[in-house]
Amino acid sequence: MARKASLSGFPEWLPEERLIEQHIIDVLRRTFELHGFSGIETRAVETVGDLLRKGEIDKEVYAVSRLQADEASASESGLALHYDLTVPFARYVVENSGHLAFPFRRYQIQKCWRGERPQEGRAREFTQADIDVVGDGALPFRYDIELALTVVEALGALPIPDFTLRINNRKLAEGFYRAIGLEDTAAVLRSIDKLEKIGAEQVGSLLREEVGADQEQVRLALELAGIRTPDTSFVERVRALGVSDELLEEGLEELRQVVAEAAHRAPGRVVADLSIARGLDYYTGTVYETVLDGHESLGSICSGGRYDALARKGNRTFPGVGLSIGVTRIVSRILSQGLATVSRPVPTAVLVTLADEGSWSQAQEVASALRVRGIPAEVAANAEKFGKQIKFADRRGIPFVWFTDTEGAHEVKDIRSGEQHAADPGSWLPPAGDLRPIVSAR
Amino acid sequence: MARKASLSGFPEWLPEERLIEQHIIDVLRRTFELHGFSGIETRAVETVGDLLRKGEIDKEVYAVSRLQADEASASESGLALHYDLTVPFARYVVENSGHLAFPFRRYQIQKCWRGERPQEGRAREFTQADIDVVGDGALPFRYDIELALTVVEALGALPIPDFTLRINNRKLAEGFYRAIGLEDTAAVLRSIDKLEKIGAEQVGSLLREEVGADQEQVRLALELAGIRTPDTSFVERVRALGVSDELLEEGLEELRQVVAEAAHRAPGRVVADLSIARGLDYYTGTVYETVLDGHESLGSICSGGRYDALARKGNRTFPGVGLSIGVTRIVSRILSQGLATVSRPVPTAVLVTLADEGSWSQAQEVASALRVRGIPAEVAANAEKFGKQIKFADRRGIPFVWFTDTEGAHEVKDIRSGEQHAADPGSWLPPAGDLRPIVSAR
Repeated sequence: MARKASLSGFPEWLPEERLIEQHIIDVLRRTFELHGFSGIETRAVETVGDLLRKGEIDKEVYAVSRLQADEASASESGLALHYDLTVPFARYVVENSGHLAFPFRRYQIQKCWRGERPQEGRAREFTQADIDVVGDGALPFRYDIELALTVVEALGALPIPDFTLRINNRKLAEGFYRAIGLEDTAAVLRSIDKLEKIGAEQVGSLLREEVGADQEQVRLALELAGIRTPDTSFVERVRALGVSDELLEEGLEELRQVVAEAAHRAPGRVVADLSIARGLDYYTGTVYETVLDGHESLGSICSGGRYDALARKGNRTFPGVGLSIGVTRIVSRILSQGLATVSRPVPTAVLVTLADEGSWSQAQEVASALRVRGIPAEVAANAEKFGKQIKFADRRGIPFVWFTDTEGAHEVKDIRSGEQHAADPGSWLPPAGDLRPIVSAR
Repeated sequence: MARKASLSGFPEWLPEERLIEQHIIDVLRRTFELHGFSGIETRAVETVGDLLRKGEIDKEVYAVSRLQADEASASESGLALHYDLTVPFARYVVENSGHLAFPFRRYQIQKCWRGERPQEGRAREFTQADIDVVGDGALPFRYDIELALTVVEALGALPIPDFTLRINNRKLAEGFYRAIGLEDTAAVLRSIDKLEKIGAEQVGSLLREEVGADQEQVRLALELAGIRTPDTSFVERVRALGVSDELLEEGLEELRQVVAEAAHRAPGRVVADLSIARGLDYYTGTVYETVLDGHESLGSICSGGRYDALARKGNRTFPGVGLSIGVTRIVSRILSQGLATVSRPVPTAVLVTLADEGSWSQAQEVASALRVRGIPAEVAANAEKFGKQIKFADRRGIPFVWFTDTEGAHEVKDIRSGEQHAADPGSWLPPAGDLRPIVSAR
């Protein structure tokens, strides 16, 4: 595990590692579908204009062009690989608005690409699993709560350690900053975003240098960012700072509702954390980040927020709220620290052996009879000595081998225990735990 | 259905269309896993050198580069998006040979990109589903038979019309051409490959012009290419042409074995078709193509072959055999001609309504109780009049709505029949056909 990728930042998994990733994707998909989210995919490419307008990450975008430029058609110039699934989804909603029923709930699990410096938890090609709800003109605030609860349920079903969903609200933060006289709230948020990395003192210096904050403004901004409560007590702590503002009040009330409901339905999984800023500037209300407890340095494994104006068509807007789970970030950590295991490395449960070279077709019949009942089976390619065929199964990690003698009598052997007994290909079943590879937390 | 893509050649599906594509991918994955194939994914990018050395399609490759070229690191120059999954798989096998058990069976379902002129059945971004078996040094010929039977089973489980797997053998063709004095067998194959498109007369002209064939050579080459039999009778027909050659004999015997076994195990699905050439030059034995009956103009929906020297590491070779299913090509045809339908457009089976604004949390409890038993459920966002909430479910395509009155009594209504009755969220089940969206052939 944790081999070096042949191209830095482009991880590839071995088959048994891919089983863990596939399990995670399957669990997320199942949870999202149980919550009524429709699966979609968008094309890997967007226009460079669309990507840069919304993201501010020009240096990290991979451009795409036909190798033979003379052949390139005009429609294809200026394309690049998407760096997230939110910007493509906003375009998809606008383009297909006439075909969608709003509020539109969708999940999307796809690769994204960013030319960042690779390190653990930060790849250049990575899989994201997003859920969003988007309304036509308006979107009830309740979805901010529902989406938090949906990802808590989804992450809770994964073979990972405990995690904490940290929630804040842009209105709360922006209202507060403006009320204390810091008008460039985007710049304040960028500085506060570095709190965990560089500490309060350096963030204070940044605020003085970059937004011209005075001693008292720095004190208040840092006090606000220092508030973190597992319940709604943050409201009183903010009020105790003595700052009043309409937008601040609106944000306080929204965050109160999210945290109250989440603390009730998912106790211990959610905190109000008033230091959460999120880099992307399209968020307008609730913002979310998630850390794996004990793995905080890995960064957020699930982030998102409310965006009121990302998708527009003329003067029609499609406000939304969504979260994005970093599948590759989670899988990398699981693999590098052995946080989960898989019961076997291949799907195959049974190797059907060959008694002689003439029995291949008959062995295929046995394998078919097993597969029809959902038992993964493969047939040996040669009638080597049985010892060699068993060794092959062992080397592949296949738990059972099947023997059919020249009279047509069948026996099956568990090569782990050595137990062997007569069996009928039309009715034999392996123990439930041996039917498919099973992924579990270590 | 069949809307115009906003970027030509990059199709995107509506949620209900994606359900059909997802169903096809799920069926393929399930079949491949039942046959013991391990799922892997490879990175989207390869080096341009690797791609061009193996494919001869330089004009169609999409190059990838960092938008800010000054930032590009040396390791990243010369990257391009893969145009198939065979070349990346060969690299993966060589790189990871120390970690794989051979013969290694893998399936891989991923997007590929080619800058071809878009038309139905030919997109610039498309999903392929591949299976291959690769050996270390040698690979038993039997896998050529097994893989044909596996894709016949996989395609047979899809909601598509009948199909025909056409099989030929490169050794047979090359041996024959050489024996009649046509040494540039690759050029002959390229000409023969156009038979279905341009007809026998024009292929004859091509053979005269490009490889200098005389009247008799043209006659023999076209006679060979005209042989198509659903059984092993092609052997006698080839012999009747009076050409003898060692390689030809080897190919005849291989093709005889594949067709004999396939005709036995999948009657009516397979023909020996001696016109099949396949463009790619890495094939060395069996070659496959598949057409949907009645949709021959769509082109092949599943192609592949035996390759003995695609993957090498020093003087170690990894011979393989594999087939690639064109998922996007199949889905495009299903959608444009309405060949399949889905029972509803969303995963949600039940909309849990709100009696009043205070009942949202209680409604979430009901939804949770349903989901725990595998029933997809979502909660209304607002306590509008019940008529409006029912209309919302109807508009979304959700078949059931759930009511909980202020006393906590539950009722569920099938909005298609109007039938409504008391129900317990801990035990109620929809009819099996309503649990999930079901895709079926029309």
